[in-house]
Amino acid sequence: MNAGEDVSENSTVNEPVKVAVLGAHGRMGSEAVRAVDNAKDADLVCTLDHRDSLQQLVVSGAQVAIDLTVPSATEDNVRFCVAHGIHCVVGTTGWDDERLARLEQLLSEHPGVGVLIAPNFSIGAVLAMRFSAVAAKFFESAEVIELHHPNKVDAPSGTAARTAALIAQARQDAGLGPSPDSTETDPDGARGAKVDGVSVHSVRLRGLVAHQETLLGNEGEMLTIKHDSFDRISFMSGVLLGVRTVGSRPGLTHGLEHFMDLDA
Amino acid sequence: MNAGEDVSENSTVNEPVKVAVLGAHGRMGSEAVRAVDNAKDADLVCTLDHRDSLQQLVVSGAQVAIDLTVPSATEDNVRFCVAHGIHCVVGTTGWDDERLARLEQLLSEHPGVGVLIAPNFSIGAVLAMRFSAVAAKFFESAEVIELHHPNKVDAPSGTAARTAALIAQARQDAGLGPSPDSTETDPDGARGAKVDGVSVHSVRLRGLVAHQETLLGNEGEMLTIKHDSFDRISFMSGVLLGVRTVGSRPGLTHGLEHFMDLDA
Amino acid sequence: MNAGEDVSENSTVNEPVKVAVLGAHGRMGSEAVRAVDNAKDADLVCTLDHRDSLQQLVVSGAQVAIDLTVPSATEDNVRFCVAHGIHCVVGTTGWDDERLARLEQLLSEHPGVGVLIAPNFSIGAVLAMRFSAVAAKFFESAEVIELHHPNKVDAPSGTAARTAALIAQARQDAGLGPSPDSTETDPDGARGAKVDGVSVHSVRLRGLVAHQETLLGNEGEMLTIKHDSFDRISFMSGVLLGVRTVGSRPGLTHGLEHFMDLDA
Amino acid sequence: MNAGEDVSENSTVNEPVKVAVLGAHGRMGSEAVRAVDNAKDADLVCTLDHRDSLQQLVVSGAQVAIDLTVPSATEDNVRFCVAHGIHCVVGTTGWDDERLARLEQLLSEHPGVGVLIAPNFSIGAVLAMRFSAVAAKFFESAEVIELHHPNKVDAPSGTAARTAALIAQARQDAGLGPSPDSTETDPDGARGAKVDGVSVHSVRLRGLVAHQETLLGNEGEMLTIKHDSFDRISFMSGVLLGVRTVGSRPGLTHGLEHFMDLDA
Repeated sequence: MNAGEDVSENSTVNEPVKVAVLGAHGRMGSEAVRAVDNAKDADLVCTLDHRDSLQQLVVSGAQVAIDLTVPSATEDNVRFCVAHGIHCVVGTTGWDDERLARLEQLLSEHPGVGVLIAPNFSIGAVLAMRFSAVAAKFFESAEVIELHHPNKVDAPSGTAARTAALIAQARQDAGLGPSPDSTETDPDGARGAKVDGVSVHSVRLRGLVAHQETLLGNEGEMLTIKHDSFDRISFMSGVLLGVRTVGSRPGLTHGLEHFMDLDA
Repeated sequence: MNAGEDVSENSTVNEPVKVAVLGAHGRMGSEAVRAVDNAKDADLVCTLDHRDSLQQLVVSGAQVAIDLTVPSATEDNVRFCVAHGIHCVVGTTGWDDERLARLEQLLSEHPGVGVLIAPNFSIGAVLAMRFSAVAAKFFESAEVIELHHPNKVDAPSGTAARTAALIAQARQDAGLGPSPDSTETDPDGARGAKVDGVSVHSVRLRGLVAHQETLLGNEGEMLTIKHDSFDRISFMSGVLLGVRTVGSRPGLTHGLEHFMDLDA
Repeated sequence: MNAGEDVSENSTVNEPVKVAVLGAHGRMGSEAVRAVDNAKDADLVCTLDHRDSLQQLVVSGAQVAIDLTVPSATEDNVRFCVAHGIHCVVGTTGWDDERLARLEQLLSEHPGVGVLIAPNFSIGAVLAMRFSAVAAKFFESAEVIELHHPNKVDAPSGTAARTAALIAQARQDAGLGPSPDSTETDPDGARGAKVDGVSVHSVRLRGLVAHQETLLGNEGEMLTIKHDSFDRISFMSGVLLGVRTVGSRPGLTHGLEHFMDLDA
Repeated sequence: MNAGEDVSENSTVNEPVKVAVLGAHGRMGSEAVRAVDNAKDADLVCTLDHRDSLQQLVVSGAQVAIDLTVPSATEDNVRFCVAHGIHCVVGTTGWDDERLARLEQLLSEHPGVGVLIAPNFSIGAVLAMRFSAVAAKFFESAEVIELHHPNKVDAPSGTAARTAALIAQARQDAGLGPSPDSTETDPDGARGAKVDGVSVHSVRLRGLVAHQETLLGNEGEMLTIKHDSFDRISFMSGVLLGVRTVGSRPGLTHGLEHFMDLDA
């Protein structure tokens, strides 16, 4: 892409990035190990689980660490990496405002290091959320339906609630009131919630994995933005996008969408 | 279809049926007038609205009357027709058990007369309901989503509630318990209801007309039965099916599905 | 379920059926082994692959054999079973008219034995096909869309072609002509085919498994019957339905739908 | 909306824009007349059909003209308007490169005048096309399905062909090859086309209006962007957006998307 007359001077341009996976034996972690192994532009140099010493990261020469561990461990892991100049791609939850503030402070002391914290590594889900937010101001009505396997304990799903909140914000910014609704009798409500005034319907059905639709309606037309997640392997292209990009984005990035060029 | 070498002997076989429309100026009634007018095998002989005398039905020689009036008028209309030997196709609501009992009594005194009372003339909606009921016993999970324009006052829709009730009955007959559901947090519920244990989600969106999906799930698969009603003209093929069939089905028939051959 | 105070008198009623799986190491076979293992009303007594002797079926006391082998082996397997009084549930393809005729001949000599040959064990797919055929005569237009992973070599899929053929037959029986179509410019056609005059569109998309939609249209309405197959585990409830039923259905049955009560 | 204590000083801020409709008796034109009539921030000052003199535009004091006429008339209409300082919102087709070049030349002589030429006034369709193009580079597979009423003479639809071309361009810019496809037998193809290598499937079904889906697939996930157009009234919010914006956008704008803020 970049013509690169200086390749001889900067031979690292095309060298695979050295990657470590933390939480390598978990469900997401083991997928990540496989994905990095299969990627031509990445070298898996280190896999750790909770009994292993973080020191191995340094020994392995890892340039990027993928953290797919647990909320109780992720902060220590990431801080260790940053302190040792290792960029981080983080899929673990539990990063509240306090933790984020501490991390930004640390990153300011290590200005060349990048950390991506991504609540969702699914490129399709990130796009669906973004498109829902961009489109919302153009439509009179908006509702969200999310459909999941019946073992899910929370309703609505976190992604659906976040999508609804983004839609609600976009509607408010555009001066739109609530979606029109003449409902007079609505006996008790099925699974779901109103999130900032946007209805989110939660379907739980054996056989499903994770699916979500945003429905946007105007007089005479409907726009539907639907994402189907059939398998957790779908998160891996997002993880690899993070691995490939994080080294060139110093500081803290929150959300995979900031690594995606969405203005084309 | 019937080869008809005896047409000369029984010339009425192919004669168009003489049809009256009651409530001819209403939204459904005016569609029915147009539909009967366009049908080759039907002759529109009489259109009445609430100021006209029912006596005109007799004068016109109507063989079938289509009642698309209002709950307060429909019983008198139908009783008049039955008493005068005119078959009826009834789309008006308001036929409670008491009215139905009185009508059956009257029909027993006029054994050649047929009356079809159809809560839904949409052939597609009738099929969707039937297929949902037939399929329900084969699936671990079932939910219903109905989507309508935002001027609708009730939620869930009558058709969706009826579909859910049929699914619930089929599940019970098959010894199935409730659909699996691990939901622990479900803050307050969006629009909709649980009908006999089956979740019905109600979407209200500007631009929509009337739409319904039954979702049936088993490990590894989903069956979806969806009906979209874009225009009230869709009811007319059901009305005409009623008109063509009611003369050969004496007594009371409740539901258009009984006039449809569904065992092919 | 039924409490059964007479168990002592008719102890076979509730005894699990003894099941053998042939082709037990294949993809479908290994799923079947797991499914029989997990079923409370079935006992897995024998698993065979192509190196094993069929004699083990007799030794094991198997009452029902599930054949998930290959076209070149299935006829010998099934004939052996029938000759030894073992009912068969067969998912292997390759049963042409000649083989079927020979099998019917053999079954006539073993009148108590039942064989089910099922081209499709997915209960959802069987229902979708059946509903498409039942509904077809009520609609002016019908088309089929099938969507599969991009490694599939044939288009359209066998199930879609069969669905289209059933729709075409139903339309012909009802005296319907071709679906209306004013297309004048249609440069070259995308993937798919016209099957007996019914358009079948074939989508190939990374991430999909096996999906099919029948679209049926009338003035003002559309009925959609959609089946999503996410995982081959979805075939197992059909296999178990076969196992539970085949013993009470002597002779040859072709198609799982004949074991399903579809008139409810 | 903004309370505006300075209204007295700058009273034109909130004055309705004076609008003329050309082709006012056509199907789209009569909808536009109704839409402008109902809009609080627009005044309908002039409606013309092909027998009327363009001079009336000047007399009426129209600030914006909506051209919904025919290809043979639109160029003369627009040139007249530009020459008289009237902004134009143009939905008529037939603007080839030659006409556009002549118009840009004329506009350069009238630097304050704006002209919007929009092949599609449906905000939902414009968003669907844009989102398809933005998302395309992130997915291994892409196909388009368009579904229309059976009176449509061309397949695939212009919007679908344009969407596919945008997807193809985005894939090429991102260095993606063709979508994976192992199809070996594909007998003859159903309705549709490959547009720049992207499969477009064309469904024609009685009851439908205009519908389109972009399907984007990666390992384990699918993103679907669907637009349903139920009624031509859906174009009117796009027409009004054009009317409200064109006066502040001098020169030629091609495509409604340039009047929509899509970076939110």
